[in-house]
Amino acid sequence: MPRPDPAEVFELTEAGQVTSPTQQTHFASRYVDGSTIDWLREEAAERERTHVQRSQYGVRGLLLPWFDAVQMWLVVILTGVGIGLTGGWLDVLVKWLGDLREGRCSYGFFYNQVACCSGVTPGEACLEWRTWSEFLGVRVILAQSLLHSFVYVSLAVAFAGSAAVLVKSYAPYAFHTGIPEIKAILGGYVLTSFLTPWTLLIKALGLALAVASGLSLGKEGPLVHVSCCMAYLLSRFFKQFRNSEAQQRKLLAAAAAAGVSVAFGSPLGGVLFGLEELDTFANESEVMWRGFVASAVAAVSLQWVNPFGTSKLVLFQVTNGSDTWRAFELIPWVGLGVFGGVLGSLLIKLNVEAALYRRNNALHEWPVLEVVGASAITAAISYLIVFSRVQASELVANLFQECDPTKIDYHGLCNPSAMWENVFLLILTAALKVLLTAWTFGMMVPAGIFLPTIAIGACLGRAVGLLTQGLQRAYPSAWIFLSCPPDPSVRCVSPGFYAVIGASAMLGGVTRMTISLVIILFELTGALSHVLPIMISVMISKWVGDAIGKDGGIYAVWIAMRGYPWLPPVDFHDKGETGAQLMRPVERLVVIEDDRETVADLAGMLNDHDFHGFPVVHRHEFLGFITRDKLRLAITPLLAEDATSGRPRRCVFSQRSPCNPEEAVDLTGLLEEAVLHLRQEVPKELVVSMFQKLNLRQIIFTSGGKLRGMVTKTDVVALLTCNFPHTGALPSGPRRAWE
Amino acid sequence: MPRPDPAEVFELTEAGQVTSPTQQTHFASRYVDGSTIDWLREEAAERERTHVQRSQYGVRGLLLPWFDAVQMWLVVILTGVGIGLTGGWLDVLVKWLGDLREGRCSYGFFYNQVACCSGVTPGEACLEWRTWSEFLGVRVILAQSLLHSFVYVSLAVAFAGSAAVLVKSYAPYAFHTGIPEIKAILGGYVLTSFLTPWTLLIKALGLALAVASGLSLGKEGPLVHVSCCMAYLLSRFFKQFRNSEAQQRKLLAAAAAAGVSVAFGSPLGGVLFGLEELDTFANESEVMWRGFVASAVAAVSLQWVNPFGTSKLVLFQVTNGSDTWRAFELIPWVGLGVFGGVLGSLLIKLNVEAALYRRNNALHEWPVLEVVGASAITAAISYLIVFSRVQASELVANLFQECDPTKIDYHGLCNPSAMWENVFLLILTAALKVLLTAWTFGMMVPAGIFLPTIAIGACLGRAVGLLTQGLQRAYPSAWIFLSCPPDPSVRCVSPGFYAVIGASAMLGGVTRMTISLVIILFELTGALSHVLPIMISVMISKWVGDAIGKDGGIYAVWIAMRGYPWLPPVDFHDKGETGAQLMRPVERLVVIEDDRETVADLAGMLNDHDFHGFPVVHRHEFLGFITRDKLRLAITPLLAEDATSGRPRRCVFSQRSPCNPEEAVDLTGLLEEAVLHLRQEVPKELVVSMFQKLNLRQIIFTSGGKLRGMVTKTDVVALLTCNFPHTGALPSGPRRAWE
Repeated sequence: MPRPDPAEVFELTEAGQVTSPTQQTHFASRYVDGSTIDWLREEAAERERTHVQRSQYGVRGLLLPWFDAVQMWLVVILTGVGIGLTGGWLDVLVKWLGDLREGRCSYGFFYNQVACCSGVTPGEACLEWRTWSEFLGVRVILAQSLLHSFVYVSLAVAFAGSAAVLVKSYAPYAFHTGIPEIKAILGGYVLTSFLTPWTLLIKALGLALAVASGLSLGKEGPLVHVSCCMAYLLSRFFKQFRNSEAQQRKLLAAAAAAGVSVAFGSPLGGVLFGLEELDTFANESEVMWRGFVASAVAAVSLQWVNPFGTSKLVLFQVTNGSDTWRAFELIPWVGLGVFGGVLGSLLIKLNVEAALYRRNNALHEWPVLEVVGASAITAAISYLIVFSRVQASELVANLFQECDPTKIDYHGLCNPSAMWENVFLLILTAALKVLLTAWTFGMMVPAGIFLPTIAIGACLGRAVGLLTQGLQRAYPSAWIFLSCPPDPSVRCVSPGFYAVIGASAMLGGVTRMTISLVIILFELTGALSHVLPIMISVMISKWVGDAIGKDGGIYAVWIAMRGYPWLPPVDFHDKGETGAQLMRPVERLVVIEDDRETVADLAGMLNDHDFHGFPVVHRHEFLGFITRDKLRLAITPLLAEDATSGRPRRCVFSQRSPCNPEEAVDLTGLLEEAVLHLRQEVPKELVVSMFQKLNLRQIIFTSGGKLRGMVTKTDVVALLTCNFPHTGALPSGPRRAWE
Repeated sequence: MPRPDPAEVFELTEAGQVTSPTQQTHFASRYVDGSTIDWLREEAAERERTHVQRSQYGVRGLLLPWFDAVQMWLVVILTGVGIGLTGGWLDVLVKWLGDLREGRCSYGFFYNQVACCSGVTPGEACLEWRTWSEFLGVRVILAQSLLHSFVYVSLAVAFAGSAAVLVKSYAPYAFHTGIPEIKAILGGYVLTSFLTPWTLLIKALGLALAVASGLSLGKEGPLVHVSCCMAYLLSRFFKQFRNSEAQQRKLLAAAAAAGVSVAFGSPLGGVLFGLEELDTFANESEVMWRGFVASAVAAVSLQWVNPFGTSKLVLFQVTNGSDTWRAFELIPWVGLGVFGGVLGSLLIKLNVEAALYRRNNALHEWPVLEVVGASAITAAISYLIVFSRVQASELVANLFQECDPTKIDYHGLCNPSAMWENVFLLILTAALKVLLTAWTFGMMVPAGIFLPTIAIGACLGRAVGLLTQGLQRAYPSAWIFLSCPPDPSVRCVSPGFYAVIGASAMLGGVTRMTISLVIILFELTGALSHVLPIMISVMISKWVGDAIGKDGGIYAVWIAMRGYPWLPPVDFHDKGETGAQLMRPVERLVVIEDDRETVADLAGMLNDHDFHGFPVVHRHEFLGFITRDKLRLAITPLLAEDATSGRPRRCVFSQRSPCNPEEAVDLTGLLEEAVLHLRQEVPKELVVSMFQKLNLRQIIFTSGGKLRGMVTKTDVVALLTCNFPHTGALPSGPRRAWE
């Protein structure tokens, strides 16, 4: 059986370009939202396209592939530049909105506090920046205090409320973090409405408002989503991406890496995130390469905007990073690792409970009201507790800082006599943030979970650091502290670094990432000399987290709750079952019989069933697999011919049936080229691992040439997520969540 | 057809334990050196083993899997500790041997210079360390000079010669870097003699001697080899690893990561190296996890030994790492990237030519003499050129250093008036090192290529940095330098950092690694703020290198020259061919016919052909695949029975043939469970990518149930390496290279 002529298949995949309205419809609806793409088929189409290009004669044959490459790199680089600039300007916007909650610049409304005071020499008081009470001329202390808290809370509510209104009215997919959806999309899920220009705009704007409102959320995940929207938007200008879902996904993977790169100022972290979290990367070095470039470009662009005025990428610079550490410190650090694993699992559990409660409650009909209420409560609590009044990123930066007598002490954190107060306040802040974050992550605003997690971990870590330091100062001669320098004025324990360890442990517990996390933390803090303790704490917290809840981290939990067809990269172990137990046996399959069914029969079959393809057999013998779309495209004209001629023709799929053109149509060329068969005795776990590694949509089981059954991706996803009790609890995307 | 009883298969794989001598032979020779393991089969055996364990009743069923895990982690951790300590002590040994070439400690022969002078307060002259002329009381300048050069060269020759003698006499596999072999082994190649305890000992000892001799080689690759030998040695104590080549390879991957971690003091780099260079990692998070732990443990152990007395892991600390960089500097850096790509390809080419010349020449009969000659020449040249007289690592450390008026100037490198002399010397050093390295890498001593490459790149980078600095100082007001601080006393261009960039570019060109390289350089230098320029230079040099020579880096070239069955992770693109063009058609296959061949026929078949397995058909219809070893194991007793009874029996492989025990034996249970079939119309590139992703040994092509052909890993390797002209030029391991 010859391979179909490449030009023919090319026609087919390019059919979207043909102006015939029926064909247009066919191809526009090639994948509807909620379906899964067929990687093998997509790649075959892409292969045919490049073959056609290369087989062109003369200059055209040379230039066409080159144009393709140029277009691809153009999209990658523009996405990098775009997300770098967007990220930078969002930071500026958030800073301005955040500062607006405390006061305004006397000579211009649109200056933030830093810009407003940039003319003042360091050390002098900045008179140009006025708090609201100064600006409005309120002099009574009580009135000042009331005014401040009123403005603080009401602006928070206004920001959060408008973010929620924007999201609800214009782009419902712009809520939440977006990373679960991106993981699902990169795995082959189709969700076009998640990547529209509107979503891009609303998510970016809503994100700035939500972060500025002081809700317990971060900008990291949403920035990845924004980056993917950009890449999608740019890719729509080029035919090669419009026509190939696979090519598009490779771009999206690079865009996601660029998003992480900007979110954390961590270009390497972006690439590693792509490698570890987005499986698309691991398979092709070419894709990793694009991610590398996109990350680097994005970081350069971000550095060019220079939102923090430090001309550095390192966000939370750890001072005295060159300090060495002592062996006894491993004890509190291991403790923090264990604690991070436990608390991380608890946070995931609370978050799931909150999501389920919201869903099963009247609340889900009033998402904006919920956001307003939550932001009011958050603002009120934050205003009362001194550490959480500032932006979470500022809090983290201060917690990571070592005490330095030459610098201003942050709310008395370095006062050795106030140790117990500080520890109490830090633990209180962490506990409140756990509750607030568990509720906030899932509300109708763009929200990332990274920054709150870092903040919680940093509070706890700093508390442990303060306790260790106190212990060491109280008993400097205990044998465990003998490795400390004898001079009491030299610092032995660095509580700031304990905050970094706490943050890594907490992140490990919540996201269950490993290497990319270490790299991100590393680039975030510049604490190169402390890479080992960071690695150890991440390792331990992941171990503990995985031991407590076999959920695979917060993103895997949300993917499962949404019911996306995403294969978790777990090592599945069967108990001796074979593929035969997993497959849908042939009796329960809808099968096309060679040389038996008429064109009209097949049309009826297409109407009756919405499977994405059908196995073709000849008296139980497996001939091949045909996809729904190819079949529909092929029989639509034949159906019309049969209707006019009045003679129904049989459909023939193999050379062995004689094919008289009067009585039969030859559809042999429609069979998929790449179909995997296995024997049904194959172990179940091998079937699962093939789906994981090859991104398959189905595997056919044959035995001695006879069709025995079939397994689809959906079956495997169901198998892998059956342990999680709330699988599919928030079905069919966010829209249903409040409609 | 029921799946065979797990216990039965377990019996089979455990047969190596049975004391029967014939069975023992079978299993000892299950894989001979030079063959390839079958991953699917290995994993199936492992699966059966764990099933048997878990299905045990009572405490045994609980404890056995737990013991397995404990054993595994024990090996991982012990390997980490072992390689960390070994690496640390090797450094100490090398330092002592290297210092011995210049003098000795007056109060103890076994102290190196640093240890000898440790009692002296900084700033004072160290009188305890005596050069040879001081020690021997030579006072005439000329005689001193002659004595020094004589000792320098003759000790170099002695060290290198004894390394070569050790390697040649005791462990021929201990020569070269070892990374190509490890990549091949991790891909499934069997080369047990590469991992023996003798190889471990000789490689470690020889490495110290070779490095101390001042030959142009590094310790990085060989340390990875040593680490793998350790893991192999430790794993032999546990049955689960002895019986499973796949499990062993997973351990080796972790060990390799630990080796890199120790070689560069770069625990994250080790994990990343595993991820990027050793494909085994990408497939299983569990394996990556082990690499993570092994790397961390190894780094902690190394830090505990503290060979450099700095109690830091960062080997070549870049001072003033917090300096920002200016946009115009991208021009020289991009230039360095391009240059690194070109020079890297050139170095690979020269190295290949040198290897071929050695092979086709009388030289290969006198490997020790060659090493002696090369070390004499290297030592003589190095002694004359001031920059290369010290160990390469010391040179690199000095080149990476910024000029600091408070520190001692390294050979006038910071003297602004001697710019041209310095540039000339640096370029000369680099050029000589290229030639020496191209020759040395492949001689009969343990030799890594990382450090020489870094040294070459650092020389060139520093030269470019000096030129740029000179240009900026000469024309400080040119528009391109306007971003520099106006005060001429403030440094604008940091030549030390140019050396780092040069090193990364050169490494990118030679190894074609990307992310792991950036991370390693990063941990090596601590230059966190300069991650972007490093990324960019690595990117560009890889692009340029790949454009010039499609060889995939030095390791891939050596694998191809050796002819190891390793699948390069390239993106293969066909020109429209299908699997039919790649497969060996059924007419040229050796096939077992169901119910036709007698036991004796099969035994004869096993003797006549050395294929690792045979397809089984029933009148052209494909039934399954049977491996050579299973078949041999099964028919050996049957053959004896038939010989005694005198009645030859037929072999039956499917239920459809009636199986009368008098006339036939049922071998149905021997068919492999996991066999992949595809249609022969499947595109060639999909077949290749399946081999790459699933680590297959063969794929069967069927059509309508009939066997059409088969593709094996060897065919795919031949396809992928056909572009490289010297494939298999140094066949069958190192032994043949000189015998």
